[in-house]
Amino acid sequence: MIIIAERINATRKSIAKALKEKDEQLIVSETEKQAEAGADFIDVNAGSDPETEVESLSWAVGVVQGSTELPLCLDCASPRGFEKALEVVEKKEVMLNSVNGEKDKLESILPIAADSEARLVGLLMDERGLPQTMEDRLEVAEKIVNKADEAGIPADRLYLDPCIQPLSTTPQDVKNVIESVGKIMSSFPGVHTTAGLSNIGFGLPYRSILNRVFLTYLIHAGMDSAILDPTEYDMMATVYAAEALAGRDDFCMNYIQADRKGLLRP
Amino acid sequence: MIIIAERINATRKSIAKALKEKDEQLIVSETEKQAEAGADFIDVNAGSDPETEVESLSWAVGVVQGSTELPLCLDCASPRGFEKALEVVEKKEVMLNSVNGEKDKLESILPIAADSEARLVGLLMDERGLPQTMEDRLEVAEKIVNKADEAGIPADRLYLDPCIQPLSTTPQDVKNVIESVGKIMSSFPGVHTTAGLSNIGFGLPYRSILNRVFLTYLIHAGMDSAILDPTEYDMMATVYAAEALAGRDDFCMNYIQADRKGLLRP
Repeated sequence: MIIIAERINATRKSIAKALKEKDEQLIVSETEKQAEAGADFIDVNAGSDPETEVESLSWAVGVVQGSTELPLCLDCASPRGFEKALEVVEKKEVMLNSVNGEKDKLESILPIAADSEARLVGLLMDERGLPQTMEDRLEVAEKIVNKADEAGIPADRLYLDPCIQPLSTTPQDVKNVIESVGKIMSSFPGVHTTAGLSNIGFGLPYRSILNRVFLTYLIHAGMDSAILDPTEYDMMATVYAAEALAGRDDFCMNYIQADRKGLLRP
Repeated sequence: MIIIAERINATRKSIAKALKEKDEQLIVSETEKQAEAGADFIDVNAGSDPETEVESLSWAVGVVQGSTELPLCLDCASPRGFEKALEVVEKKEVMLNSVNGEKDKLESILPIAADSEARLVGLLMDERGLPQTMEDRLEVAEKIVNKADEAGIPADRLYLDPCIQPLSTTPQDVKNVIESVGKIMSSFPGVHTTAGLSNIGFGLPYRSILNRVFLTYLIHAGMDSAILDPTEYDMMATVYAAEALAGRDDFCMNYIQADRKGLLRP
């Protein structure tokens, strides 16, 4: 499983404040906590205000990469934000979060991902809005995979995200998401699937248990990456246990090793 | 989900001691803890020593039923143990744990279950030993369902248990168990499936996370009962979250109600 750690996100008040005040210490601390918990990529999201986002993202990227060996996942809405942030990135390995199936997005972001040899998160939505069915998702997946291929981005650099909607508002879509993951993994060889989990429990109590249980369902369906908070109680233990029980961890070696490294406990 | 609470089991040292010393207080405390955590049946197992089991079981049944409104699940290896314990049982509702596919067991235990109108756990093993495949399990399931029917026990009083074996020793069987649950639920209308979870993590660290993650896989496959420790951290939260995400809890009513009753937190 490729774990994209989501805590450095400007929708969180403490992060928005740290970005505004250029509080390096908080960004470093969030980076280190997530790295210790078992992250593979550190996601860096500097907000949705186009006035400040581009400059804030570049600043945060500098701070994060100065405090970890891990690669970064640049989380941004604008092509210009990606370009500016990529100028700061020192490591060869990088992920861009995200493109989607909209024509404009594909045309502007795919060339940037191709040039930087980045991995790329692809949200399975387009001009029509959020997907309602498995078919909607497969259609957008095919579009992204084909356009990426034309742009010179191989399938194994794509991380397709089925766009999880809240259980409380669209309960019928939970099944579609699970089935979409299975279908995408079998239909597009080499492509990865990922998902931002934290939407699922919107409006419900004890959201973290819904995150973790839904994660097990998605891992069982074949998902091989996730965008989550690895410092959440039992989150990484759930990842390792779910993979072992899904037959994706021979002799439970990863599970046992994670236990020895202390990753199964918060 | 029908939760059969497993803590009063003579394989646990503290329970064996309490049974030997007739320590009512410990048995009452274990009963109450499990009832508060959300149990539907309190399992009572008084050990495997035939010298003392029958008498101990009857004593424990008296103590447990004096301290809870919940029905009991009599957990015993011998027909005589069931008969003696049933003499003590005051409630109409009762479960017997267990029969299996062995000829002797079926012939001796089915009439007792029929006479007492008990629900009955059926382990999917027989003279050939533990099941190795899904086909082994389906074969024994069919035998138990048919013999129970002949004895006058309707399908909806049967709780078939696929016999979980440790992930560490038989990793290839995990998939068989999950598929067996789905196949049994679709092949034998009315029949329930249940499972003793705690075997799965044998020999591995942090067994309780393996219990909970495997439980989610089984609930997703259709399992509608489980034999587990409802006082284990996050266990009942996992049950409610897994059912809601499997589409078996309209409007998340059970999940929300469980939260209001404090059942989602230990």
